[in-house]
Amino acid sequence: MKNTRLETLQVELGDRSYPIHIGEHLLSRADLLTPHIGSSQVCIVTNETIAPLYLDQLVATLSGYKVKTVILPDGEAFKTLETVTAIYDALLEHNFSRSCTLIALGGGVIGDMTGFAAATYQRGVNFIQIPTTLLSQVDSSVGGKTGVNRPLGKNMVGAFYQPRCVLADISTLATLPDRELKAGLAEVIKYGFINNRGFHEWLNSNMSSLLQRDSESLRYAIRISCEEKAAIVAADEKEDGIRATLNLGHTFGHAIETALGYGAWLHGEAVGVGMVMAADLSVRLGYLDAAEAGEIKALVVAAGLPAVPPELAVDTWVQLMSKDKKADQGNMKFILLNSIGEALIDAQVPRETLIKTLQAGPALAQF
Amino acid sequence: MKNTRLETLQVELGDRSYPIHIGEHLLSRADLLTPHIGSSQVCIVTNETIAPLYLDQLVATLSGYKVKTVILPDGEAFKTLETVTAIYDALLEHNFSRSCTLIALGGGVIGDMTGFAAATYQRGVNFIQIPTTLLSQVDSSVGGKTGVNRPLGKNMVGAFYQPRCVLADISTLATLPDRELKAGLAEVIKYGFINNRGFHEWLNSNMSSLLQRDSESLRYAIRISCEEKAAIVAADEKEDGIRATLNLGHTFGHAIETALGYGAWLHGEAVGVGMVMAADLSVRLGYLDAAEAGEIKALVVAAGLPAVPPELAVDTWVQLMSKDKKADQGNMKFILLNSIGEALIDAQVPRETLIKTLQAGPALAQF
Repeated sequence: MKNTRLETLQVELGDRSYPIHIGEHLLSRADLLTPHIGSSQVCIVTNETIAPLYLDQLVATLSGYKVKTVILPDGEAFKTLETVTAIYDALLEHNFSRSCTLIALGGGVIGDMTGFAAATYQRGVNFIQIPTTLLSQVDSSVGGKTGVNRPLGKNMVGAFYQPRCVLADISTLATLPDRELKAGLAEVIKYGFINNRGFHEWLNSNMSSLLQRDSESLRYAIRISCEEKAAIVAADEKEDGIRATLNLGHTFGHAIETALGYGAWLHGEAVGVGMVMAADLSVRLGYLDAAEAGEIKALVVAAGLPAVPPELAVDTWVQLMSKDKKADQGNMKFILLNSIGEALIDAQVPRETLIKTLQAGPALAQF
Repeated sequence: MKNTRLETLQVELGDRSYPIHIGEHLLSRADLLTPHIGSSQVCIVTNETIAPLYLDQLVATLSGYKVKTVILPDGEAFKTLETVTAIYDALLEHNFSRSCTLIALGGGVIGDMTGFAAATYQRGVNFIQIPTTLLSQVDSSVGGKTGVNRPLGKNMVGAFYQPRCVLADISTLATLPDRELKAGLAEVIKYGFINNRGFHEWLNSNMSSLLQRDSESLRYAIRISCEEKAAIVAADEKEDGIRATLNLGHTFGHAIETALGYGAWLHGEAVGVGMVMAADLSVRLGYLDAAEAGEIKALVVAAGLPAVPPELAVDTWVQLMSKDKKADQGNMKFILLNSIGEALIDAQVPRETLIKTLQAGPALAQF
């Protein structure tokens, strides 16, 4: 079997630096995992969808350890403190000590919850991420954000906690539903929009091969995405400044997710249309050329993502967006674009301009 | 009114360094608080016992801010994730942003829960400690340990999170019940046992004036205790080594607290007799002179603390102690004494020697 080449990036965060390995068939690579495991106690946290596909393989790879497994229900609806408590109690039942290691095997929800459990079990234990969706490989496994939702807001409880290593195994994408592959592409194309015009051009030319799951194309897209994110996180780990640009489309997107209930739209779908809304608003405020907004919308559509938001009342939009974590005391901060490849932050968007974007519907980014 | 002098210690932790102010009538000192508050949003977390005594005074001091208050039930039984969730939801209801400040007004339970909420609300917000018990002034407000209990173990969920400042207001000790004052003295005398023979001598001479709540004596005892703890924490923030010596008596003590149910014995009471048990074990293992063990027991008794443990089966002791966080995979690690003023760590205590200490009862530390 011919494999694509294994690539390794280093996320530079001083004594919390860690490697991201990208390649095929990594679940069987004990050599990549063992340097980051601190004692014989290892707990793999996964969900009911992923367990039948990949859990046995990973357990076999870790045959030298006392491996326990926690299998959670699948879905954003279960990204709660109650579910994290189930992880704590499984660890306590098996007398897991502070030198134990937690491994997240799954998508962003599993990674966020396992990371939060690792950050807070006995005030912090070893953590390894094995993301199995495109979204989590390019986004949530880089940067150390962990957390859970509350009924009043998404990701409102959490911690910054870095993994010891990340294994982005492209082979696990073979079983990913099409809809989730497309949702993951939302975060991939985001990196082009905010910071890398060249990558944007590459995406324009290679979208169909990504949708056909060509390994080499996926490897390249994952590598560039992780590099972009790692560079931004290294410059601003706690999101005091530039890291906020990673949230392009997310203020709109979170409002959609909250309004429709977590899970009705996938996160990437909400972010996809959110980026079109941000492009639309950027044009209305005089930052972005109308032609580039059209190009952004076209790439969102090419990735198979929605480019028209659900119909919500303006008051609903505004109320939900002002609850977003990026809002400071109700004052909304928007991530916008000067051009494709250059993001900016604007905390002074006039309400009447925002309303035009919120009401544009199918005419979004068409000027 | 003649006040004792205000003293300020600095806990040295690089960019997480913070001051501890020790003195009288500090609740009215806005000048000590405002440098550490990041925005107009301030939330004071306290309990039903402390609120009627000191909450109005603190709210008045913070009159320039939008102050919200959360009043929790009093007691270790409420040191749970469910209670912390009530803090999260109060912050979310009032749209508190990432620049908000949480102030803990109360004892160790309030400080531990408020600190954990501050560590995890929106992945970390400003935190100020105003400890109102002797125990929390000399112990839990220094060092950044935050957390909650689980049914299977105490402090099993938490985070290391440093406050921006600590106000140890001696005036608040005026309303402290005698039993809690004595429980706080357990941690005070611990600093003499583990690291400061001179302080131990001072305590032998000044115990009655501490029990009479003499302000100057309390200020001195609090200052030395905080200095001792701050120095150890600065050397070993994450408890990889020397910090463990702060747990003298705690492995025995936690077993007592868990066996009898949180709150039956106060933490300080359990630690008091736990230190006598550690001294007893230290003699049996040939580390400590029998005469010094007797001196330790005498000071515990002079502080009004129990020196005889509750009767528990040996299996119960061992099972509960092996669940302690300091136990690594069931291998118990004991903090023992070479002499008064010099602690050591021993992870190889023979079971038969330990059993003798567990069964000594009223004959503990009498050789």
